Amino acid sequence: MIIVMKRDAGEAAVAAVIAKLESIGSEGHVSKGQYRTVIGALGDREAIHQVPWEAIDGVERAVPVLNSYKFVSREFQPEDTVIEVRGVPIGRADEFVVVAGPCAVESREQLFRTAEAVRCSGARVLRGDAFKPRTSPYSFQGLGEAALELLDEARAEFDMPFVAEVLDPRDVELVSSYADILRVGTRNMSNYTLLQEVGRQPKPVQLKRGFTATLQEWLNAAEYIFKEGNHQIIMVERGIRTFETAARNTLDITAVPLLKQMAHLPVMVDPSHAGGKRQLVAPLARAAAAVGADGIMVDVHPEPETALVDGEQALLLEDFDEMMKAVTAVAVAVGRST
Amino acid sequence: MIIVMKRDAGEAAVAAVIAKLESIGSEGHVSKGQYRTVIGALGDREAIHQVPWEAIDGVERAVPVLNSYKFVSREFQPEDTVIEVRGVPIGRADEFVVVAGPCAVESREQLFRTAEAVRCSGARVLRGDAFKPRTSPYSFQGLGEAALELLDEARAEFDMPFVAEVLDPRDVELVSSYADILRVGTRNMSNYTLLQEVGRQPKPVQLKRGFTATLQEWLNAAEYIFKEGNHQIIMVERGIRTFETAARNTLDITAVPLLKQMAHLPVMVDPSHAGGKRQLVAPLARAAAAVGADGIMVDVHPEPETALVDGEQALLLEDFDEMMKAVTAVAVAVGRST
Amino acid sequence: MIIVMKRDAGEAAVAAVIAKLESIGSEGHVSKGQYRTVIGALGDREAIHQVPWEAIDGVERAVPVLNSYKFVSREFQPEDTVIEVRGVPIGRADEFVVVAGPCAVESREQLFRTAEAVRCSGARVLRGDAFKPRTSPYSFQGLGEAALELLDEARAEFDMPFVAEVLDPRDVELVSSYADILRVGTRNMSNYTLLQEVGRQPKPVQLKRGFTATLQEWLNAAEYIFKEGNHQIIMVERGIRTFETAARNTLDITAVPLLKQMAHLPVMVDPSHAGGKRQLVAPLARAAAAVGADGIMVDVHPEPETALVDGEQALLLEDFDEMMKAVTAVAVAVGRST
Amino acid sequence: MIIVMKRDAGEAAVAAVIAKLESIGSEGHVSKGQYRTVIGALGDREAIHQVPWEAIDGVERAVPVLNSYKFVSREFQPEDTVIEVRGVPIGRADEFVVVAGPCAVESREQLFRTAEAVRCSGARVLRGDAFKPRTSPYSFQGLGEAALELLDEARAEFDMPFVAEVLDPRDVELVSSYADILRVGTRNMSNYTLLQEVGRQPKPVQLKRGFTATLQEWLNAAEYIFKEGNHQIIMVERGIRTFETAARNTLDITAVPLLKQMAHLPVMVDPSHAGGKRQLVAPLARAAAAVGADGIMVDVHPEPETALVDGEQALLLEDFDEMMKAVTAVAVAVGRST
Repeated sequence: MIIVMKRDAGEAAVAAVIAKLESIGSEGHVSKGQYRTVIGALGDREAIHQVPWEAIDGVERAVPVLNSYKFVSREFQPEDTVIEVRGVPIGRADEFVVVAGPCAVESREQLFRTAEAVRCSGARVLRGDAFKPRTSPYSFQGLGEAALELLDEARAEFDMPFVAEVLDPRDVELVSSYADILRVGTRNMSNYTLLQEVGRQPKPVQLKRGFTATLQEWLNAAEYIFKEGNHQIIMVERGIRTFETAARNTLDITAVPLLKQMAHLPVMVDPSHAGGKRQLVAPLARAAAAVGADGIMVDVHPEPETALVDGEQALLLEDFDEMMKAVTAVAVAVGRST
Repeated sequence: MIIVMKRDAGEAAVAAVIAKLESIGSEGHVSKGQYRTVIGALGDREAIHQVPWEAIDGVERAVPVLNSYKFVSREFQPEDTVIEVRGVPIGRADEFVVVAGPCAVESREQLFRTAEAVRCSGARVLRGDAFKPRTSPYSFQGLGEAALELLDEARAEFDMPFVAEVLDPRDVELVSSYADILRVGTRNMSNYTLLQEVGRQPKPVQLKRGFTATLQEWLNAAEYIFKEGNHQIIMVERGIRTFETAARNTLDITAVPLLKQMAHLPVMVDPSHAGGKRQLVAPLARAAAAVGADGIMVDVHPEPETALVDGEQALLLEDFDEMMKAVTAVAVAVGRST
Repeated sequence: MIIVMKRDAGEAAVAAVIAKLESIGSEGHVSKGQYRTVIGALGDREAIHQVPWEAIDGVERAVPVLNSYKFVSREFQPEDTVIEVRGVPIGRADEFVVVAGPCAVESREQLFRTAEAVRCSGARVLRGDAFKPRTSPYSFQGLGEAALELLDEARAEFDMPFVAEVLDPRDVELVSSYADILRVGTRNMSNYTLLQEVGRQPKPVQLKRGFTATLQEWLNAAEYIFKEGNHQIIMVERGIRTFETAARNTLDITAVPLLKQMAHLPVMVDPSHAGGKRQLVAPLARAAAAVGADGIMVDVHPEPETALVDGEQALLLEDFDEMMKAVTAVAVAVGRST
Repeated sequence: MIIVMKRDAGEAAVAAVIAKLESIGSEGHVSKGQYRTVIGALGDREAIHQVPWEAIDGVERAVPVLNSYKFVSREFQPEDTVIEVRGVPIGRADEFVVVAGPCAVESREQLFRTAEAVRCSGARVLRGDAFKPRTSPYSFQGLGEAALELLDEARAEFDMPFVAEVLDPRDVELVSSYADILRVGTRNMSNYTLLQEVGRQPKPVQLKRGFTATLQEWLNAAEYIFKEGNHQIIMVERGIRTFETAARNTLDITAVPLLKQMAHLPVMVDPSHAGGKRQLVAPLARAAAAVGADGIMVDVHPEPETALVDGEQALLLEDFDEMMKAVTAVAVAVGRST
């Protein structure tokens, strides 16, 4: 932590900061400039981070040098985390994993038609949600456990692991008893009780970025899961909220190389929720492959105009097949296979 | 809903939209302009909102005319909702209610010193949290039920109702058994399972705005609570996330008059979390009183430099007293008493 | 400047940074922590700010301690700047100055009716633009010099100084030869050639905040004007661009107390352009008075539904009168007279 | 335009809107729903757009159906605009054009070393600025005409056309007399007098997106140039301002496919200014190629640690060569050659 004193802070204020540091077993290095005195705090990271430095008289500002997340950082573990899910390796530098399926499970027929088609086109993991968080209480909220049973059947039929969202800490065990991968959605990225609950499961977790979360906050959310003992975390960039409303969200493509530097976890992109429009999915999916993501997750629906959730962004089965070809070409150009 | 067709959409596409509308018991009014055909959808709001119009061939864009929230709207109930909490009326046009206390309960002494001081300066409701959502898993997370017991004592001692945050649906009954008002924090505004749970309690709920939520989304979150049967909802503006980082958040003061138009619920402002710095609290509190809010909620701490949560923004006991005088003068200028 | 080295930066990298500092006549204080070495750079502010520190091997990040603006800062001049315009003092702690008039001058009748009414209700400075920056090239762009002549007449008739916007460096002398105060609009806050040109005029300048400018950038824009010799600068907060679209912009009310700390210049608020809707003007104007602004600038039009620019936000003459009464009451509550 | 009336708007208010429409030679189609009356305005786009609908009694909101830009739209011209600059075709579906060079021209040696290297690695257009817009008035502002003379020499020596920024309407003719392509920078995107001036030149114009401009506003800025007679406009996405500060800006990669739908102009990406960090340039450049951009513009410097402008983001000569290879592979994968 670097503590910048106010211009008019006197010796006593500087001494008080030093004393505070010493009281927590740390120490301070003082640099006096022409206009400002700056104190470098050295010692235990957590202890130093707990102190409300800017509440202390004479302190203008405290600038952290170290991040508050630790175990998920690239510093803690230099090599990439690779997560194997029923034989599919997520996070390997030469693989690009495509997750695809309906946004929500609506019926056996809808799920099975989609699963068969995406499998055939090259997807390796199935998606399909049983519980949906919806802005309006009057919207379709998912089929619940019945959907998980259908996904279980589809997994067997098409030999694909599946991922499903979990919304409520009380449902975590239920979803975890069916799904191969749990997903924490964008609205729940800062739902810490949910993060702790999935952190205690033996299943990998996709952690979507809150649509207004900084990378620091997102990695802290991952740290919550990691700290509970679950180290199999897949970060999913899905667009952030900005002033631009021409697309549903603004895909933060830069987050991919930044995360790869900051942390050792696999990074995926969700071009469907990012763009929110069918015609944007393929270009954004190609960009994700080119920028260095470990995979993508794509909404597909056999009849999007009847979809109960997010039909606007679902690819038709044939669109998905075409997208897979284009994405594969780009992935190959950067040294990965799909 | 207004459905704008693409420039090149033909008769068949228009007919398909009309047919879709009729299939859900609604109808369409067609206006043909020089460049675009526009279809006004008339009929049942929910049925029309469920259709993914932009997934239908030939549709360029669908613009909702009505909001998706209903019961919390000013249209549904023209008169203001006023919530009485142990004799304190929240939402009355001639009152300005000040909620104050520590961000988190840390000890009996800290709580009681603060409660006594804020009561004496004119606060009418006590705040103090037992469970804290923290960005980092290594930060102090609250004293839990022990804090609720201290708040219970303080309530009796100082004759003030209190509000406390709830984070986990599994804790709602516990918190509700102690607190006079429940609070859903900014990170949980879109935690729909939590909203439903507090919607089933017989206690008023403070619903803080998600720091990236639009007013529409915020009112939809309130609708979740209302729909479960709890109509005692207090909206709390606490700053939104923008590009400006000079303060912790950007207080959206405009949200207050906008919400007052859109909905019938009381609106408060939290100047402490909005500004995130002690010296900003009083000016923002005055602005809240002037703009027409029904009250404010303020962090106060006897020794902010030792606070375990958000010490930077806590007012000292004497600062709070001074702020109360200034805020009262402004409240009086707009016809309210504190 | 504080220079944080990468974790793996060795002695040589640290030595290179020190050498660079010495080569520009500065020096470096080194603090070695467990995970990072931090170097405090001491010496000439400008020389240190010019170096692209993060382009140097081994440097992770460079954090400025001092601001890049200087003359406009509160540190440079502790006392408030007060600007007298034909007897109206702008920036005095006991005055609240209301600027009002039409957004654009459209006709003699429109201008004179408005000027007479706002003068009578208590406005002390007239606004009315001759040149308008418009998003679309097909919108009304202002009457040009003819408008300035009308404003000149209105000034004499109603004994009010007037402010007018300037868009083009080539028009600065023309506008300056008529107006009492020049205005640089939000779209031109970073038009440095225009800032330099108004910096050479003997007239005060209203500098509106760019709708996406940080306070730092805004103060740097003021520094451009100051540096050319013009010290009469009035900062005007007019709303920033955020994700929230319920109002035209998000009024950053917090900017007022922050600017008052950071700089010595008068600060006004433009509630009309901030909210963009007639019914928001009065509440935002009251908030501006309460928060500590030195004044407001308000759009008024005798027949807003015929206005050529921004009719949605113009107050009717009678609305303005009512607003003045409410704003005056709030101003008095904070120790200012209008 | 679609005009949505307030719930309580009566017959008279609807009649007044219809009368207003008729007074400007247009007409209105009325649809009455259960809660709202909606009026579709049919007729002359500009005339309808000029009216401040929301200032009229009883009107809740006016939603434009058509865009305010016209000539730059894909509707106006379905085929792609291709701009030939000394034999380099910009905007052709099978080409990917790389513009590279120093951010600012600092010396003959710096410029020539860079130009030679980037030419050799495959860049086809040279960049190098003579006038630089800087946030701080104390930063290096460019060499002016001397830089243009050096660029002129470099063009001859290395057989590459060059692009240079123009800041001041008074300098447009000077820059235009040297450069092959003019550039309007991000801070000047809404400097309409500058846009008009470059609109009168016989040289292509790169129009960078304002870092807070919506796509609509950006296309309207292009329309300003087009309307003056200059149809050779290249749109350059360079990142927008959001809450995320881990990179300098947030590259809005989605803007590329959206612009391609909305307009017929070539679209480039500037990965250097978007990311602001050297290590982000190559991944973002690959993403730009994959998403369907017509080219990129990249900062390169032989010794970034001595650069006078933006050294943090400049590629070293050897980094650029490596980036070109990777970008070429991705471009080939999407059917383009560099």
